[in-house]
Amino acid sequence: MILWKTLFFSSPTKIIFGKGTEHQVGSEVKNYSSKVLFCYGGGSIKKSGLYDKVVNSLKEAEIEFIELSGVKPNPRLSLVQEGIKLCRENNIDFILAVGGGSVIDTAKAIAMGVPYDGNVWDFFVGRAKLERALPVGVILTIPATGSEASDATVITNENGWFKIGFHHDLIRPKFAIMNPELTYTLPNYQTACGVADIMAHVMERYFTNVKGVDLTDRFCEATLKTVINNVRIVLKDPTNYNARAEIMWAGTIAHNDLLSTGRIGDWASHKIEHELSAIYDIAHGAGLAIIFPAWMKYVYKHDINRFVQFAVRVWDVNLAYENLEDIALEGIRRMTEFFKAIGLPVTLKEAGISDDRFEEMANKCTDNGNKKIGNFIKLGKEDVINIYKLAK
Amino acid sequence: MILWKTLFFSSPTKIIFGKGTEHQVGSEVKNYSSKVLFCYGGGSIKKSGLYDKVVNSLKEAEIEFIELSGVKPNPRLSLVQEGIKLCRENNIDFILAVGGGSVIDTAKAIAMGVPYDGNVWDFFVGRAKLERALPVGVILTIPATGSEASDATVITNENGWFKIGFHHDLIRPKFAIMNPELTYTLPNYQTACGVADIMAHVMERYFTNVKGVDLTDRFCEATLKTVINNVRIVLKDPTNYNARAEIMWAGTIAHNDLLSTGRIGDWASHKIEHELSAIYDIAHGAGLAIIFPAWMKYVYKHDINRFVQFAVRVWDVNLAYENLEDIALEGIRRMTEFFKAIGLPVTLKEAGISDDRFEEMANKCTDNGNKKIGNFIKLGKEDVINIYKLAK
Repeated sequence: MILWKTLFFSSPTKIIFGKGTEHQVGSEVKNYSSKVLFCYGGGSIKKSGLYDKVVNSLKEAEIEFIELSGVKPNPRLSLVQEGIKLCRENNIDFILAVGGGSVIDTAKAIAMGVPYDGNVWDFFVGRAKLERALPVGVILTIPATGSEASDATVITNENGWFKIGFHHDLIRPKFAIMNPELTYTLPNYQTACGVADIMAHVMERYFTNVKGVDLTDRFCEATLKTVINNVRIVLKDPTNYNARAEIMWAGTIAHNDLLSTGRIGDWASHKIEHELSAIYDIAHGAGLAIIFPAWMKYVYKHDINRFVQFAVRVWDVNLAYENLEDIALEGIRRMTEFFKAIGLPVTLKEAGISDDRFEEMANKCTDNGNKKIGNFIKLGKEDVINIYKLAK
Repeated sequence: MILWKTLFFSSPTKIIFGKGTEHQVGSEVKNYSSKVLFCYGGGSIKKSGLYDKVVNSLKEAEIEFIELSGVKPNPRLSLVQEGIKLCRENNIDFILAVGGGSVIDTAKAIAMGVPYDGNVWDFFVGRAKLERALPVGVILTIPATGSEASDATVITNENGWFKIGFHHDLIRPKFAIMNPELTYTLPNYQTACGVADIMAHVMERYFTNVKGVDLTDRFCEATLKTVINNVRIVLKDPTNYNARAEIMWAGTIAHNDLLSTGRIGDWASHKIEHELSAIYDIAHGAGLAIIFPAWMKYVYKHDINRFVQFAVRVWDVNLAYENLEDIALEGIRRMTEFFKAIGLPVTLKEAGISDDRFEEMANKCTDNGNKKIGNFIKLGKEDVINIYKLAK
């Protein structure tokens, strides 16, 4: 039995949650800077009126800003480098991200790159150690990645389409402004993708070999049940404040490392999915809805009891305990049905992805077969190919 | 329906959890100071060897220290004032608390008082606003009050035996070192009192009139189930690391305000209990095990559904839903039985407390009947007396 590992936890990001909180952005930023990079995606924040609110709040607080727009899903290194250049040219010392995970991750990577002499990609491939980063603040518009309070950023290098994550406490945002009303206009598909991402962040942590982590097990189950119940409400009633609030807060909790305390997560499914979305530019959440059931079918025999707990406590499976395998499989089946019910693809075919690049992707995520991924079970290149095949 | 209130959350205390972590105290303190007040209770940390470990670690890190020992349960203002004087005389700018909640609360109050010109009691009675406080660090030896990561301190003024709590983000400890092994030697009664305190912190937050706070409801239930299950293990097997770890971590979670997010707690039971332990010097946890069932019986009709959820989800009550009141009462009954089973008193009589000072205590906690306490239901002086009577 593996005992509780040593646990470090600190969640310093100041969460400012509720209706109208976006109007506080100027006064929050003012604590750090009076000249910022205002980073966002496409036109959606202009259409919704959020852009104007941010600009007004910054102006009221007498904060100068330079804009960097055009952040895309699976955010690109080239835009990060453009942002770094802009900051240096304009003596900017704070990055404000207004948007979802891609915008926040871009902001974090810019924050890492500005005070560093070399290429910011060095950090992602382990060629440099992060020692300083500019402070980042967030107004969140899409609950999904949890980047608003996490220590992570995931960037795609177009030169070879490598999508790699980086973790460091220095890049946790200083504040995250979260108004559930800002998510009312999200299309259902994007809401569903966000939920799959949130659930994946929890499940990566849930499937662990560490025994006796009762409280975090229950917190994981609580978070999963909350998003499962509330997304059903939101898809029918997109302006339901309470349900939107539950999903938004669950998205933060799923990835601020509270649910990692005392345990070692898996993270193979994320890596396997990253190869998919790097090549095919499929939404990360949709990719996870495809990969997770396949991963589960491939590994569940490693710890049937854990999958039984998942089935019983999260999916209310109530079969006879004579056959634990049936219970475990029923849990996986219900999760898959749930993803379908909220409008997500659960096979590669449904996402229009053929089987001709499995080997290429498996090579990329296992360093040509030289590296194993995951912790629940260590997976090599052939395992990864088998999981892609199960997801066909 | 009350909507989610605006939510602020930040849990900046650096949690350092695991075996042997107490040896890191010197290097952690060094980040803040090289001259500290080392604050502890009686001889137990000397007997256990923890005192020597702390002293060695501080010496290795070349940190000078002055000692303040003798902190008692329901910690006293006079000792706080002695600590403030010691710090001023010796130019001390950091307080290290080694012990349980009383030691930590004393350290926090000293930290508030040192940079303040007036009497530190001013803060507790609302006569002064806290603007500065010295940093505090903690090595926790008793999981109970959650003070290791909370913004609270509760101090008793011997002049009139007023026991009053104070809250401010400035007094959250900078770090909390938590090694479950340090709790192996706690007597069963003290472990049980700690568990009652932890559960009370959760239940004060659970019984709210705010609707639609699904995730924090489930987190509350998860925390309660975790301590309920694990204290049974610990009372039989005091050196069970996993079970001790669960209780210790649950104690922090119960009071670092994660479980307050999006809701308004009650806190009447705490105030009603504080009057008991101010006068009778009963352990706070034991007092709570007496007051909480009485409070519940007095208020459950205000929101039967909430008490049904509590009974079903926390206490696994599985009666027919034809009579919700039976379900609610069965939940309260099981909680009371649980407190008994872990060795706590559940009536005033069992604690040797007579009924002759009910009015005096009710007067103190309602400002002579001029103030109502609690939020789930607002309670006046007569209500408080009735609750003491139900607890007889």
